[in-house]
Amino acid sequence: VIPEGFLFSAVNSGIKPEKPFDLGLIFVPEGAVAWGVFTRNTVKAAPVILGKKILQKHSVVKGILANSGVANACTGKEGLEAAQKVLEAAQRILNIPSGALLPASTGVIGDPLPVEKIIKSLPELIKGLSPERAKDFAQAITTTDTFPKIVQKTFQGVNILGIAKGAGMIAPNMATMLAFICTDAMVERSWLKKALSKMVESTFNSISVDEDTSTNDTVYFLASCKRKVKNLSGFRKACEEVMRELAYLIVKDGEGATKVIRVLVKGARKKQEARELARAIATSLLVKTAFYGGDPNWGRIFAAMGKTGIPFQPERVELFLNEIPWIKNLTLVTEERILAEEMKKEEVTLTVHLKKGRARAEFLSSDLTEEYIRINAHYRT
Amino acid sequence: VIPEGFLFSAVNSGIKPEKPFDLGLIFVPEGAVAWGVFTRNTVKAAPVILGKKILQKHSVVKGILANSGVANACTGKEGLEAAQKVLEAAQRILNIPSGALLPASTGVIGDPLPVEKIIKSLPELIKGLSPERAKDFAQAITTTDTFPKIVQKTFQGVNILGIAKGAGMIAPNMATMLAFICTDAMVERSWLKKALSKMVESTFNSISVDEDTSTNDTVYFLASCKRKVKNLSGFRKACEEVMRELAYLIVKDGEGATKVIRVLVKGARKKQEARELARAIATSLLVKTAFYGGDPNWGRIFAAMGKTGIPFQPERVELFLNEIPWIKNLTLVTEERILAEEMKKEEVTLTVHLKKGRARAEFLSSDLTEEYIRINAHYRT
Repeated sequence: VIPEGFLFSAVNSGIKPEKPFDLGLIFVPEGAVAWGVFTRNTVKAAPVILGKKILQKHSVVKGILANSGVANACTGKEGLEAAQKVLEAAQRILNIPSGALLPASTGVIGDPLPVEKIIKSLPELIKGLSPERAKDFAQAITTTDTFPKIVQKTFQGVNILGIAKGAGMIAPNMATMLAFICTDAMVERSWLKKALSKMVESTFNSISVDEDTSTNDTVYFLASCKRKVKNLSGFRKACEEVMRELAYLIVKDGEGATKVIRVLVKGARKKQEARELARAIATSLLVKTAFYGGDPNWGRIFAAMGKTGIPFQPERVELFLNEIPWIKNLTLVTEERILAEEMKKEEVTLTVHLKKGRARAEFLSSDLTEEYIRINAHYRT
Repeated sequence: VIPEGFLFSAVNSGIKPEKPFDLGLIFVPEGAVAWGVFTRNTVKAAPVILGKKILQKHSVVKGILANSGVANACTGKEGLEAAQKVLEAAQRILNIPSGALLPASTGVIGDPLPVEKIIKSLPELIKGLSPERAKDFAQAITTTDTFPKIVQKTFQGVNILGIAKGAGMIAPNMATMLAFICTDAMVERSWLKKALSKMVESTFNSISVDEDTSTNDTVYFLASCKRKVKNLSGFRKACEEVMRELAYLIVKDGEGATKVIRVLVKGARKKQEARELARAIATSLLVKTAFYGGDPNWGRIFAAMGKTGIPFQPERVELFLNEIPWIKNLTLVTEERILAEEMKKEEVTLTVHLKKGRARAEFLSSDLTEEYIRINAHYRT
């Protein structure tokens, strides 16, 4: 069920003529409590700078205007003015005040935002608004994505809809991730401000994209406040679930990826240690290529962990592949042939048990393939 | 000219039957003042643990026994005992005391060192010792390298010979780098201890391999003290030059690489900032693939710099490609067609001028290609 109060639309504005849509609008006529989490990259795209400002001034907004094809990053003052111009034009036609729309862009860095093309397309975009067009909106924000990413969930009568894009999947990478969470839940803004960072930490920031914040990474959360939430922590979990599923879809659609690798580090002394180790494994090119090739070359996993500088005893560490025991006391405990077969699956879980404590962390990653190179060497993204 | 006092040998011991040599020996019958710099990975291979210990006890050694094919890492106590055993066997035949030989290994992590094969080959290895066989030794330590790496230099009558291996070239990576510097210079050990770390910092630690210290990375420096050094700082520069050329050869031979990318960041306020920015650019997969594809997609360079969190003003930054002006005030100042053509060269220099101060740093990198994936997905390294 689509959250109450939300309308969606999408058009092709001519930025990317080969795509069905390249410009999208989410509109909440009666307004939504809003908050956002943004990239930590010191080079921030114009829509990120602007979006932050808007959310600092306004706690209620009326929607999001998003485009693909051009990131509007490294575009200086002109870029900020361009972003402002298209928002103002849309706000005029919608007859809503300045600061009511949030901006988002993804695509090539350095190119100017095609302001005229976008403004020309606004009447058609706004005319097309409908509660049924979330999928078209999701399509409009894709870049190298091979499928639009939408996740829906209803929790105790409250609806949550998440839309995301992102495909450059490998660290160190800078592919933009955009995610918009729409819900008809009634939430306080103070709650949302705190909760959103936490939810992002265990979902979008736990995929191998995270350490390489792009210039444009943005998560917006809009709540139309149409339905009461009885169980706030349950609602938060449901939102987190939506975000986790979106994060999973982003990894699954990783550029050139053939599989999702779930790295679970457990038995750590501290959560932070578990996280760092999981990240080091999940982002190691040699681990990613080994999973691609179906080579149970476990030394690469230990070497990746060692890079972190976190002390651990290799002799005590146990490895499991989809719950099949792999390494114990530095010795192979299952035939390589069986492990190699298991690695070929489209979804693999690597469990690393440190046997030091009770903390754990999970990281999602994808494998690294020739196709990733082709996409990034020969197409401009 | 080969440094006085050094003998070299190599054999095939059967670890890697397809290679001409897989076991090598450097022997200095009258001894050499020695020091080493090792990996910072918390998972240290047996030869690294042992080599460190030997150098802490002994300031003079008589040589290095090195093998390829097996890294002797993640092999626990047995690995240490195995490394010790082969050294002792060699020392017995050479009739030199315990602690006189340094160990080095490179190859697959986790496999046990084939002690018997190595010990059986020692008589032939030792019989083959000659001042003329440095090239065979260099061949013996290669793994995925496509050529052995040797650099020779004579400075004011003093000879320096450097031998290295290393090919996995991309960060985050864990390919082992071994480098052995042999000289007939007379140097104090206290000088060597200080000087070696500094020389390594600006050479082997300024290629994109460095942040991903493998389990086995080792640089040994042996000085036979046969010739007096008149100009110590000049000698140090000559040694650094040898190491810089070896580092260059390692990058040039990067797995699957088609070109060497020299990233020079200048106009920084601090050396450390210049270094971090250069490293961030040099290790970015998107930058590497763009150079491979000959795509002057400069936004990726700015985004890679932004990842560091170091503040800079994109508007002030100027980019140059082999001294051709590329970006000024966020605007392309040379036709893309010309830049794309320039990027296709086998050696490209990307200069980033920050216009903030006078500090600079250089980093060497290679491009990222489909061939890298093939090597690391489908061959066990």
